[in-house]
Amino acid sequence: MEKYDKKGDVSYTLGTTLTFELMLRKPEVARKIYVNPKQKRDETYEKMRLLAEKQHVPFITNNQKIFSLSEKDNVMMIGEFQKFQTETVPSGNHVVLVNPSNQGNLGTIFRSSAAFSIDFLAIIRPAADAFDPKCVRSSMGAIFSVPFAYFPSFEAYQALAGYRHYYPFMLQCSTPLHTIEKLAPYSLIFGNEATGLPDSFLSIGTPVRIEQSSQVDSLNLDNAVSIGVYAFR
Amino acid sequence: MEKYDKKGDVSYTLGTTLTFELMLRKPEVARKIYVNPKQKRDETYEKMRLLAEKQHVPFITNNQKIFSLSEKDNVMMIGEFQKFQTETVPSGNHVVLVNPSNQGNLGTIFRSSAAFSIDFLAIIRPAADAFDPKCVRSSMGAIFSVPFAYFPSFEAYQALAGYRHYYPFMLQCSTPLHTIEKLAPYSLIFGNEATGLPDSFLSIGTPVRIEQSSQVDSLNLDNAVSIGVYAFR
Repeated sequence: MEKYDKKGDVSYTLGTTLTFELMLRKPEVARKIYVNPKQKRDETYEKMRLLAEKQHVPFITNNQKIFSLSEKDNVMMIGEFQKFQTETVPSGNHVVLVNPSNQGNLGTIFRSSAAFSIDFLAIIRPAADAFDPKCVRSSMGAIFSVPFAYFPSFEAYQALAGYRHYYPFMLQCSTPLHTIEKLAPYSLIFGNEATGLPDSFLSIGTPVRIEQSSQVDSLNLDNAVSIGVYAFR
Repeated sequence: MEKYDKKGDVSYTLGTTLTFELMLRKPEVARKIYVNPKQKRDETYEKMRLLAEKQHVPFITNNQKIFSLSEKDNVMMIGEFQKFQTETVPSGNHVVLVNPSNQGNLGTIFRSSAAFSIDFLAIIRPAADAFDPKCVRSSMGAIFSVPFAYFPSFEAYQALAGYRHYYPFMLQCSTPLHTIEKLAPYSLIFGNEATGLPDSFLSIGTPVRIEQSSQVDSLNLDNAVSIGVYAFR
């Protein structure tokens, strides 16, 4: 068992709660469940064992080595799963991240997208790796419930996205978020943490700005996304 | 020069931009500026040297060892500053964090509080350390612009906070954020990342809930705070 490989076709849920999220929300991608030999044979153990049995997922209890994957000592269960993405872009409301670079932010954005019932998360490359175990963990398992896919360019996404209203969030524009008419289905578009969206997005849909003081350069990306999805909910 | 000591009376800005934030917004707490011997004698160097001279802060260019403080190799400037907090609770609008445990979240909350011109951040112990260099960094320097203080209990804060409207954010209540009357001056109150606010806050002011799907347990703390301060802006 190796360390997580960005180019490989599997990733891991490091922790019991995350592994339950995998098995309850996306069991079809689960490949193996590893249980720390130190895990007690308690109700949690039995619940996971039954889930694994039902889904025909190997349930491995004698492999200590796998737990070196985790930086924390107290990880009792790890799920190994096949990387996946949604094949067809669903209708409904989307969040589009153009070149997000931070794995932790990306995980948190999955979480708030789930909280506000976003139907699809589009990630435009180059971008952080959603399957990195750090992102999986910071998503609190929401990566298994929010449909998502990577695209090579914004145009590639747009070609498949169907009729919708585009709202690029940019500091270069002066239209405040609270003043605009919010029409569904929508795509809320956010740029890179450091550079934001390029000026070319000023001519796409209705660019908006989250009104904020001049004291800071901008909000943290996941906070901007949270405010956006909340305002459009 | 030692590693950061939580119990000590100094902390550090690890990076040039952060060190400028310190020197421009809170120069009275700056004690020393360390410049990496690898730093070029360029415009940035000269600007910092002049700031240090003007503020009578020692400007130290021959100490390589200090840069072991930083995990990243490319840190070119570090500021050492005296820990501080606001002595008198200002009037205006507050964010109150009850037992926040994550340094990164705390830093990001400073950032969004600055973005939305919050007048004061109250932190109820036990709580994460705002002076930890990780928090200082994730605040992007907003720790030097948003007045804040620690309190031993919510009651200790309340005794000094003056007349105001309290809004505890809690999942135990059913009043949605968007339906309530938002009265200033206000205090938006948020609980611990894992446990939220205790039920006792149901009898304080106007408890509110950020409406969200049942798919996730709750939002990330800094995202909940961002939505709150945005909705009240």
